[in-house]
Amino acid sequence: MATVTLISDEEATPEVRAVFDDIRTTRGGDFINNFWRALAHDPALLKATWERLKLVMGSGEIDPLTKEMIYIAVSVANACEYCAHSHTAAAKAKGMTEAQHGELLSVIGMASQTNALATALQVTVDDMFKA
Amino acid sequence: MATVTLISDEEATPEVRAVFDDIRTTRGGDFINNFWRALAHDPALLKATWERLKLVMGSGEIDPLTKEMIYIAVSVANACEYCAHSHTAAAKAKGMTEAQHGELLSVIGMASQTNALATALQVTVDDMFKA
Amino acid sequence: MATVTLISDEEATPEVRAVFDDIRTTRGGDFINNFWRALAHDPALLKATWERLKLVMGSGEIDPLTKEMIYIAVSVANACEYCAHSHTAAAKAKGMTEAQHGELLSVIGMASQTNALATALQVTVDDMFKA
Amino acid sequence: MATVTLISDEEATPEVRAVFDDIRTTRGGDFINNFWRALAHDPALLKATWERLKLVMGSGEIDPLTKEMIYIAVSVANACEYCAHSHTAAAKAKGMTEAQHGELLSVIGMASQTNALATALQVTVDDMFKA
Amino acid sequence: MATVTLISDEEATPEVRAVFDDIRTTRGGDFINNFWRALAHDPALLKATWERLKLVMGSGEIDPLTKEMIYIAVSVANACEYCAHSHTAAAKAKGMTEAQHGELLSVIGMASQTNALATALQVTVDDMFKA
Amino acid sequence: MATVTLISDEEATPEVRAVFDDIRTTRGGDFINNFWRALAHDPALLKATWERLKLVMGSGEIDPLTKEMIYIAVSVANACEYCAHSHTAAAKAKGMTEAQHGELLSVIGMASQTNALATALQVTVDDMFKA
Repeated sequence: MATVTLISDEEATPEVRAVFDDIRTTRGGDFINNFWRALAHDPALLKATWERLKLVMGSGEIDPLTKEMIYIAVSVANACEYCAHSHTAAAKAKGMTEAQHGELLSVIGMASQTNALATALQVTVDDMFKA
Repeated sequence: MATVTLISDEEATPEVRAVFDDIRTTRGGDFINNFWRALAHDPALLKATWERLKLVMGSGEIDPLTKEMIYIAVSVANACEYCAHSHTAAAKAKGMTEAQHGELLSVIGMASQTNALATALQVTVDDMFKA
Repeated sequence: MATVTLISDEEATPEVRAVFDDIRTTRGGDFINNFWRALAHDPALLKATWERLKLVMGSGEIDPLTKEMIYIAVSVANACEYCAHSHTAAAKAKGMTEAQHGELLSVIGMASQTNALATALQVTVDDMFKA
Repeated sequence: MATVTLISDEEATPEVRAVFDDIRTTRGGDFINNFWRALAHDPALLKATWERLKLVMGSGEIDPLTKEMIYIAVSVANACEYCAHSHTAAAKAKGMTEAQHGELLSVIGMASQTNALATALQVTVDDMFKA
Repeated sequence: MATVTLISDEEATPEVRAVFDDIRTTRGGDFINNFWRALAHDPALLKATWERLKLVMGSGEIDPLTKEMIYIAVSVANACEYCAHSHTAAAKAKGMTEAQHGELLSVIGMASQTNALATALQVTVDDMFKA
Repeated sequence: MATVTLISDEEATPEVRAVFDDIRTTRGGDFINNFWRALAHDPALLKATWERLKLVMGSGEIDPLTKEMIYIAVSVANACEYCAHSHTAAAKAKGMTEAQHGELLSVIGMASQTNALATALQVTVDDMFKA
């Protein structure tokens, strides 16, 4: 149902194959999800996206599970069906509990509501909030 | 510049005043930001929004700073100017470091990019990601 | 502050002037708001937009005030600052009371929240809802 | 296809069951749509969302059918597939005629277009429109 | 799966039939895609939308393929599933190569990322950028 | 008015200074716009964003002016004020005529409208459009 076909391992060019191999090594598993197989039509875009993702989502000042929850929040606000599915699955794999999932949804719902109210009211930003 | 005027303490009805008092008590300060003063045109909506916000953003399975970062993520994706300002200020007040802010922006930027790519490609959701 | 300059009456071409005249006649007043003065850089786009707007927002099966409230709802969800201001002003001019404004905001806020929840949950559409 | 499983009547906790019962009583029918069954993973969020929805969408200064049309407008602008389906069905159940549906779509389409134009032009808000 | 049924040739009113005929003549083929069949529930909206689309997407100062790529960009940012599919197909039919498709996606991804960053940072517009 | 301060040349770290120098060399001018000065709080994010942008927006299968118009389209749909300003200025600097600007706006407006209609109608994707 995609706008492009999915690139199988057999169809992968060497540059694509190298990215697929790195995804497998990084994640410790054989599975390559459809996003990367669709993106593989443009090997340079595939490589740039994967390498940046690996760097951004790795350990740092914010822990990986929190990063996944932030990713879900953005994906939901952008109405991305695939992303909501894939990052919810990723967050669960990284240990998100059902209780955390519920709180995450509560925060996303609350933010969506007050975003709409603030935009409807066109509230002037308080001086105290400016850098 | 708002679509409604801001309600001062003097103009506040008793119901509005009670919410303003609770905001002050909860936050331990006298300042009431413009969002609540604009919303005060509808006391019932003001009260329902504040009480839900207080509950949702309090301590739970996800810590308050993480909740603020999730709130920023949603606000940015919804292009809410007021919310980006107010919740970035709130996150800093709750201890968000400059390094965490940078990582938060990196995750938001990355998610926005892959959201767009997944939507453009209309990638079919992998069976593995379905509940 | 716009990305184009605003076209004054003096700068208006005859085609633009004809649209400005029709706006004045239709609305029964001399004021031409900035949106039309910015759009006037492209007379054909100005004319097509105004004529369609006049037709769509006129009387029909849905009354003009309800149409303005629907317009506000879309504008808020699209985070359009100018539109939130101009259509809130228009709705007030058409008789929107403060109580109606409060209910409108409550519905917009509620919808924004459940939109986010339904997207986060990726709820399958019930068969009963399909045409 | 959801990111969570749907909670059946049998799996419902007493708190969830109480909400399901109230939905049935309020709507006068046995059907519980998938949104509530998915949300039931977090009983507190389910209860808070349902009780707020019931209050907001009930009779008031704006009639229930108009509220459903506003709900559709927000849902469309937020690209929520489930919500477009469920609230279009709800609006039809509340009496929306095909002619009203057509006008609703015309207004949503018009607003979406002028929202984009105003944002592209970054039109300065007229002083007359400010509260 | 739509919120309305699709209007077949047999069900088409004379006004709808005239639009279908013009779509066939303009495109040089018999196929009428589902969007127009769904929109046909409101013949006036169908006609206005088609006639405007035909005019806007025709030859002008911007070539038709570039227009389709711009259309895809908007559709992706608006998370419109149907539109991403139909306009990607249209762009391919007008000659978009796989390399161009990849660059288009790269630009859309880049813009989505910096849009989010600029909104998160609430960067003040440089004087040099104002008209 | 930003959520962070702007980094001046004097405050720039060596890594930031190197990016600023490359922006100046690439663009053949001394001006560094506010976006980069705000992003400079996170030198790694600044560098990654600039280097990717330079690559994506350079010459390729799609010409630089077309890329700027696509960038504007995405920025408008995402309601990014700063981006609408900066990329409209960039497009004009790369030769966008007033007539092209008008057509660009017409396409963006048309797409926004039909995106909304297709989403409201939840039109099923035609088999012919699938890859």
